[in-house]
Amino acid sequence: MNRSELIAQIKAKKSFLCIGLDTDINRIPQHLLDAENPIFEFNKQIIDATKDLCVAYKPNLAFYESLGVKGWEALQKTLNYIPNHMFTIADAKRGDIGNTSAMYAKAFFETMNFDSVTVAPYMGKDSVRPFFISDGKWVILLALTSNEGGKDFQLIESEGKALYQRVLETSSKWGNASNMMYVVGATRADWLADIRKMIPNHFLLVPGVGAQGGSLEEVAKYGMNKDCGLLVNSSRGIIYASDGDDFAAVARQKALALQKVMEQELRIKHVI
Amino acid sequence: MNRSELIAQIKAKKSFLCIGLDTDINRIPQHLLDAENPIFEFNKQIIDATKDLCVAYKPNLAFYESLGVKGWEALQKTLNYIPNHMFTIADAKRGDIGNTSAMYAKAFFETMNFDSVTVAPYMGKDSVRPFFISDGKWVILLALTSNEGGKDFQLIESEGKALYQRVLETSSKWGNASNMMYVVGATRADWLADIRKMIPNHFLLVPGVGAQGGSLEEVAKYGMNKDCGLLVNSSRGIIYASDGDDFAAVARQKALALQKVMEQELRIKHVI
Repeated sequence: MNRSELIAQIKAKKSFLCIGLDTDINRIPQHLLDAENPIFEFNKQIIDATKDLCVAYKPNLAFYESLGVKGWEALQKTLNYIPNHMFTIADAKRGDIGNTSAMYAKAFFETMNFDSVTVAPYMGKDSVRPFFISDGKWVILLALTSNEGGKDFQLIESEGKALYQRVLETSSKWGNASNMMYVVGATRADWLADIRKMIPNHFLLVPGVGAQGGSLEEVAKYGMNKDCGLLVNSSRGIIYASDGDDFAAVARQKALALQKVMEQELRIKHVI
Repeated sequence: MNRSELIAQIKAKKSFLCIGLDTDINRIPQHLLDAENPIFEFNKQIIDATKDLCVAYKPNLAFYESLGVKGWEALQKTLNYIPNHMFTIADAKRGDIGNTSAMYAKAFFETMNFDSVTVAPYMGKDSVRPFFISDGKWVILLALTSNEGGKDFQLIESEGKALYQRVLETSSKWGNASNMMYVVGATRADWLADIRKMIPNHFLLVPGVGAQGGSLEEVAKYGMNKDCGLLVNSSRGIIYASDGDDFAAVARQKALALQKVMEQELRIKHVI
């Protein structure tokens, strides 16, 4: 999916919500465990209940890999089930030397038909560029992550710039705003203004926003640009909002609550 | 496999060779393509031909993932086929927030029974620690990589230290020399002396050494410690040395040539 298609979808749905499919066999409702493929069955029902409210789905690869071959089957079935007009993110945090990154690109963009994959920047340019295989395929590079360990290296300063700023500055020259996005943690929304000065046009994938609200307004205030430029992810706050038979309906309620706030923010910023 | 078992194996085989199983369906000999699982068949013959000459095998996950479910089946079969007394490395470059790294640990250490997994350091402490699940399971953390892009961020200096040195200094406190190793590129063997001052006891996984020799002596000179402390990897230089029917025999010759040099270096340093 290319940039203009993504923006059109955001405007049509009045939403920049991404739903994270961190589907854990130990957390899905008991009654699904009898299904032929419980992980896929859970995802299918979540997708059916939320696909008009979100613009993207983000399977977290670790959860599928933890089940081995069966997990990859569930992932493939899930990806096939997601409607074609939606943006798909392989949250895989890959990145290796050139010939190996090229194989990862093949895995996620050809063998499976994801639109994008998350990549870690530590190995530099030749670990990232092999993912730019064609229009509509994206690298989503880690910049500033919201976890506690994000501080260990990402904030190390040299010549007045933190490492994550060097990553933004350097890597933004490898691609462009039509084939690169960045992961920027929502717990640091006040830094978004500075990040927006460095990369005004790129989309940002913002994890760590829950159904609690609050920080979503902050993210929109500092991070939104004229094309929206944001994908805000919620995983557990939506998919595990209920562990009963009503899990899909409750997931829809949580997604709807976020979509309503997003619609408001899109209007405030005159994107719609 | 724990540290003392690994050291015992190195001394018994007089080798610290790791063979990288970067098995590419487009590069394996034609006659294998008729096998039920060509990737596994290739790996099986490489393992049969080299298992007395090396101490470790390192499947490169990207090559298996590029084939989807079939690739994961080949990986699982390969892992099951590697003799139990050998060290196994999932070269996967993973790393994510805590609950996700825990799922990756489950994938590689429980669902599959790898001894170790390569991890990228960018997300910090809580992305690494979930891999320390039990004695004999290892994190191999990226420090200094040999690719061109390794220079983009790993050499950025602050307070007189390069980023990779900060990674070594900080991360070596998260674990110890019995559950952590580091990836250090062989193309920069002269820096090994400095790295050894910082982490005298840890094992180093050194990629980028070919059958050409030369740098292997340098790596041993500067990187070897009293327990050896090195795993030197060769992938393409061994497994693709011939693309004919004799590929396994030629792979053995290449592995033997490296083992002979390694034996000499182990004697020079009085490890054996």
